[in-house]
Amino acid sequence: MARVVVDVMPKPEILDPQGKAVLGALPRLGFSGVTDVRQGKRFELEIDGEVTDAVLAEVEKMAETLLSNPVIENYSVHVEDSVTAEAAR
Amino acid sequence: MARVVVDVMPKPEILDPQGKAVLGALPRLGFSGVTDVRQGKRFELEIDGEVTDAVLAEVEKMAETLLSNPVIENYSVHVEDSVTAEAAR
Repeated sequence: MARVVVDVMPKPEILDPQGKAVLGALPRLGFSGVTDVRQGKRFELEIDGEVTDAVLAEVEKMAETLLSNPVIENYSVHVEDSVTAEAAR
Repeated sequence: MARVVVDVMPKPEILDPQGKAVLGALPRLGFSGVTDVRQGKRFELEIDGEVTDAVLAEVEKMAETLLSNPVIENYSVHVEDSVTAEAAR
């Protein structure tokens, strides 16, 4: 069992109203020092068996077709934890 | 300028209907090998200045009070990129 993480973030040129709402709320709660906030999604996929290059290619395809909207979002795929995580970097 | 990332995930004992929906859609799209999916949120905070321990403590507080619901969600804070990211591990 291994875990592959897909991070999906709005593209830089796309407005991000959720992030802007968080950014606006921070000073009202007494927080300072944050100049921008972007909010995206994080998917944790539990993979049956080992994470090979073929599996990662499959996850990339999932990210592109199901997990993100490539018109407005970027995604990044990475393996989490232990030895596999180091090897994948 | 540095970037601090806050990952917010539903606690393991909490039902995650969004993740379940993704998990159910994968076989219909011809994907196999994924045994579980959890969906959470990812916040990218741009920090003005250096990321000190004090700043990280502040971000932890943001994560606990604004970015997550500690009753149903876990969060993790980490620094992204470059030298700072290595030092913070």
